[in-house]
Amino acid sequence: MAEKTLNDLFLDTLKDIFYAEKQILKTLPKMARAAKSEEGKAAFLKHKDETEGQIERLQQVFEMIGKPARGKTCEAIQGIIAEGEEIIDEFKDSVALDAGLISSAQAVEHYEIARYGTLKSWATQLGYKDAVALFDANLQEELATDKLLTKLTKLGETQANPKGAKKAA
Amino acid sequence: MAEKTLNDLFLDTLKDIFYAEKQILKTLPKMARAAKSEEGKAAFLKHKDETEGQIERLQQVFEMIGKPARGKTCEAIQGIIAEGEEIIDEFKDSVALDAGLISSAQAVEHYEIARYGTLKSWATQLGYKDAVALFDANLQEELATDKLLTKLTKLGETQANPKGAKKAA
Repeated sequence: MAEKTLNDLFLDTLKDIFYAEKQILKTLPKMARAAKSEEGKAAFLKHKDETEGQIERLQQVFEMIGKPARGKTCEAIQGIIAEGEEIIDEFKDSVALDAGLISSAQAVEHYEIARYGTLKSWATQLGYKDAVALFDANLQEELATDKLLTKLTKLGETQANPKGAKKAA
Repeated sequence: MAEKTLNDLFLDTLKDIFYAEKQILKTLPKMARAAKSEEGKAAFLKHKDETEGQIERLQQVFEMIGKPARGKTCEAIQGIIAEGEEIIDEFKDSVALDAGLISSAQAVEHYEIARYGTLKSWATQLGYKDAVALFDANLQEELATDKLLTKLTKLGETQANPKGAKKAA
């Protein structure tokens, strides 16, 4: 058996995030339905649309490297989503539900940010220039979504503690 | 049963990251042993020491809010670590092993960055000022570790593709 290379690692990780994005696509409508605030609902639905575009970009990368677009079970995203579902279940009647949903969504975003940062770097090393641009497009969307979610969290800070929030920021 | 509040969510998430940090503390020496490069080994060992300090800070937060320092199974970190162990297993004889280890470590870092960002914001809302500072200390260490790991990845880019790496950066 030939020694595994960065190319193998790249393909494994591409399959990992492809699986993860598909799971996220299924989860976002549930989160939008669960959210109590309009801002929360809107943020999850907007990100659902973005996720569809991100999956298409990943399909383009598979095509570029001549491999079938196939996912590989990603235990990390399964765990992150399971924790989010637990929050929906345990906090469904609570004023803190949206705070919990946003925190889950930010854990998801950060997983994607880590993976796209890695894939972008490896694509650079492997000379897949067009893939670098596609990963970067996904990365920028995830970073923007994370920023938007932080903004929604800060809204809670200002409401709860207008002076304290400023000082701690 | 009383309605759950942000305080309950805060405690749940504190237990989640406390469990996660303890798992990470167990995993980092394995990663340091597996790493082939001296830079990789050093980065994992340095972060092991930091993780011990972070766990102590979390214990201080438990004390502040008058709760026993107890973890709660965190499926997210279990999944992220399981993927890292799979990489050690599948790439142990590969030139790409360190790249894989660094990518796993960055997934771990980003999970922690998400959680500490959330906890810092909730501590602000709940008026736990001293906890805000402790979470921020952990957050800044995680951000610095992630930056260091990105630097190690970029090293690979420059080695593989000195001109391309610059253009894509």
